[in-house]
Amino acid sequence: MASKVSPLAPARFPDLPVIGGVRFASAAAGVRYKGRTDVMLALMEEATVAGTFTRSATRSAPVRDGERKLALTEGGPAAFLVNSGNSNAFTGRAGEDAVQGICAAAATALGVPEERVFTSSTGVIGEPLPWQRIAEAVPGLHGALEAGGIEAAARAIMTTDTFPKGASAEVQLSGGTVRIAGIAKGSGMIAPDMATMLVYVFTDARIGRKELQALVSAACDRTFNCITVDSDTSTSDTLLVAATGASGVDASGEPAFAQALEDVFHDLALQVVRDGEGASKLVEVRVTGAAQDGDAHRIAMAIANSPLVKTAIAGEDANWGRIVMAVGKSGAEADRDRLAIRFGDIVVARDGFRAPDYSEEAASAYMKNQELVVGVDLGLGGGSATVWTCDLTHGYIDINADYRS
Amino acid sequence: MASKVSPLAPARFPDLPVIGGVRFASAAAGVRYKGRTDVMLALMEEATVAGTFTRSATRSAPVRDGERKLALTEGGPAAFLVNSGNSNAFTGRAGEDAVQGICAAAATALGVPEERVFTSSTGVIGEPLPWQRIAEAVPGLHGALEAGGIEAAARAIMTTDTFPKGASAEVQLSGGTVRIAGIAKGSGMIAPDMATMLVYVFTDARIGRKELQALVSAACDRTFNCITVDSDTSTSDTLLVAATGASGVDASGEPAFAQALEDVFHDLALQVVRDGEGASKLVEVRVTGAAQDGDAHRIAMAIANSPLVKTAIAGEDANWGRIVMAVGKSGAEADRDRLAIRFGDIVVARDGFRAPDYSEEAASAYMKNQELVVGVDLGLGGGSATVWTCDLTHGYIDINADYRS
Repeated sequence: MASKVSPLAPARFPDLPVIGGVRFASAAAGVRYKGRTDVMLALMEEATVAGTFTRSATRSAPVRDGERKLALTEGGPAAFLVNSGNSNAFTGRAGEDAVQGICAAAATALGVPEERVFTSSTGVIGEPLPWQRIAEAVPGLHGALEAGGIEAAARAIMTTDTFPKGASAEVQLSGGTVRIAGIAKGSGMIAPDMATMLVYVFTDARIGRKELQALVSAACDRTFNCITVDSDTSTSDTLLVAATGASGVDASGEPAFAQALEDVFHDLALQVVRDGEGASKLVEVRVTGAAQDGDAHRIAMAIANSPLVKTAIAGEDANWGRIVMAVGKSGAEADRDRLAIRFGDIVVARDGFRAPDYSEEAASAYMKNQELVVGVDLGLGGGSATVWTCDLTHGYIDINADYRS
Repeated sequence: MASKVSPLAPARFPDLPVIGGVRFASAAAGVRYKGRTDVMLALMEEATVAGTFTRSATRSAPVRDGERKLALTEGGPAAFLVNSGNSNAFTGRAGEDAVQGICAAAATALGVPEERVFTSSTGVIGEPLPWQRIAEAVPGLHGALEAGGIEAAARAIMTTDTFPKGASAEVQLSGGTVRIAGIAKGSGMIAPDMATMLVYVFTDARIGRKELQALVSAACDRTFNCITVDSDTSTSDTLLVAATGASGVDASGEPAFAQALEDVFHDLALQVVRDGEGASKLVEVRVTGAAQDGDAHRIAMAIANSPLVKTAIAGEDANWGRIVMAVGKSGAEADRDRLAIRFGDIVVARDGFRAPDYSEEAASAYMKNQELVVGVDLGLGGGSATVWTCDLTHGYIDINADYRS
């Protein structure tokens, strides 16, 4: 896809710190197209690995394989091997054979136990994966590994993405400084339970597998599971985190580490929304005053996924009636006569009625911003949730009416 | 809205039979625009009335009023008074006052008890309804009532609709012939639990209120609650059925009457999908082999509401991978290795893999049809469901990025 870069893209790929104990390589293996970099390898000499995966009932063979492997080992060398161009999803037994073939080849070439090789595949569903091409590329990838290869890796995993996604943090813990760097891909088929997203995050902190897993799951719930582009959920979503311990700094029980990890997730998650297919606006939906957090999340997602809300935002129309509609359809508890709605700081409606001082002109002016906040207060209790989405434009139709994903 | 008529529209408005005991009138009351016919009245000298309404938590004042009134009386004269241009939704106490004002004026002018006046409002949300204009129009409507005014009534309730919707049936019961005629509006904000739909159906059969209500609820579940245009649910959806008994023919316990009523609902429901905003294709999604009917419905709706499926259909792309994705995300029980997918009669995939004899060429040729059937068999049990939807095109964005609904 030769798409224009999203208007919401960051100015450039960030400078990511080198993470001790991780090296990267990428290559053109010809998975789907000739001459396009489509495979990336990350090799850790020693790491604890944690992750989360799509909960789709039709999730792909590599997802099922990764889920199984996560809890098998506590440490040791590890490899992430990722291809774009073909998702190896809905490929039956052949899909599992392909994963096994790639993992066996990688284990041999890299000197990593097979159960420590994690593969991901993204791209077209239902086509047999030409896995031998990936397996054959591994020795070359091995020879090309370098500590600074993370940006090229971010580019290798792109599909309809219009820009590569990276984020990092450096955080002072009681034992010293640790670094976190991550990359992601994803721009459509984005909804909770992990979207068409692949995310790989690396840190030189030292932390046990179970504690890392708990941090990753919690942070994922507040970031990647709170974004949506089109309500569609991929069969391939994968988030993997490797902690190499190369800094020698222990991150156990350090809230600053947990926060930094979540910050990196948050940054990457918002970049995915910024690259939402056809997106021209980034929208934060903040729901407060719900009977419980779950209700707030449900309402926020109903707003964020509503085609009528998303097209109104695309049209820069302060159409708060569609927000009311989305609150109503969510199925969560709401009371019309306690509802308040804000666009940014502009109070549009309160107590179930248009605010007396509401100015359509001010609201319309606000809607012209590229980044918008829609606030809904239910007036019922202390439950809250924030989710992020983008608008629904002609660009989404252009991209998806002819891309075979 | 000056929209081109949907390419899926019927050639013309059908000839509807006159239903004894019902008269219609419509007028331009200036609810939102000057000179546009925007109010319709149906007056029954005697009728049993049944109905269903949106389950939105933010449903409109007229909906709440109608819900309450349905069970208050068993018969007597009745009026349906409907306006387009303003939905009187999210208008707080003023909304309830407006309904009361209209009903009181209509009761006086028409000689119908207030609790037998049912009002509906469709159009913009959150704007105070200029209800006096409607109240003032009632005497004129009363003077203009005629048995043959149903087509004009169908036109008066249109909003973004590109064609008026009507359907009818004539059915032989043991006691004689009865007639059913109905009209509907709706083209966006269409999803189960009644969409932005207003539906009024009239019959000259004689039937008690409770039995009629049971028939209406069951038929609605299989028709209007099985269509979706954009997954958005209106705050105003209303379906009302009036049985005048003017034929003198008793329809109690007559399966042929129940079937004819459902046929009229089905016809009107599909016309709503045919007028789906921007629709260029009508899509039937048939799910079979589910563990239970509820699972089948959930999966069918996940497919029918998936923006990625709908854009692929708009692009005439036989992208069955997106069907797999939608099955997976639905949350209902599914087993990848038992899944079969068909486009029309073309078996695309079976046993969790692309069918060996699958021809992309044949599938692509099939996708060029204006009416499509997507079949999914889960291979798990006897549960099934069918839903209807349309594709997602640039036209939807055009209509919704600037229409204030």
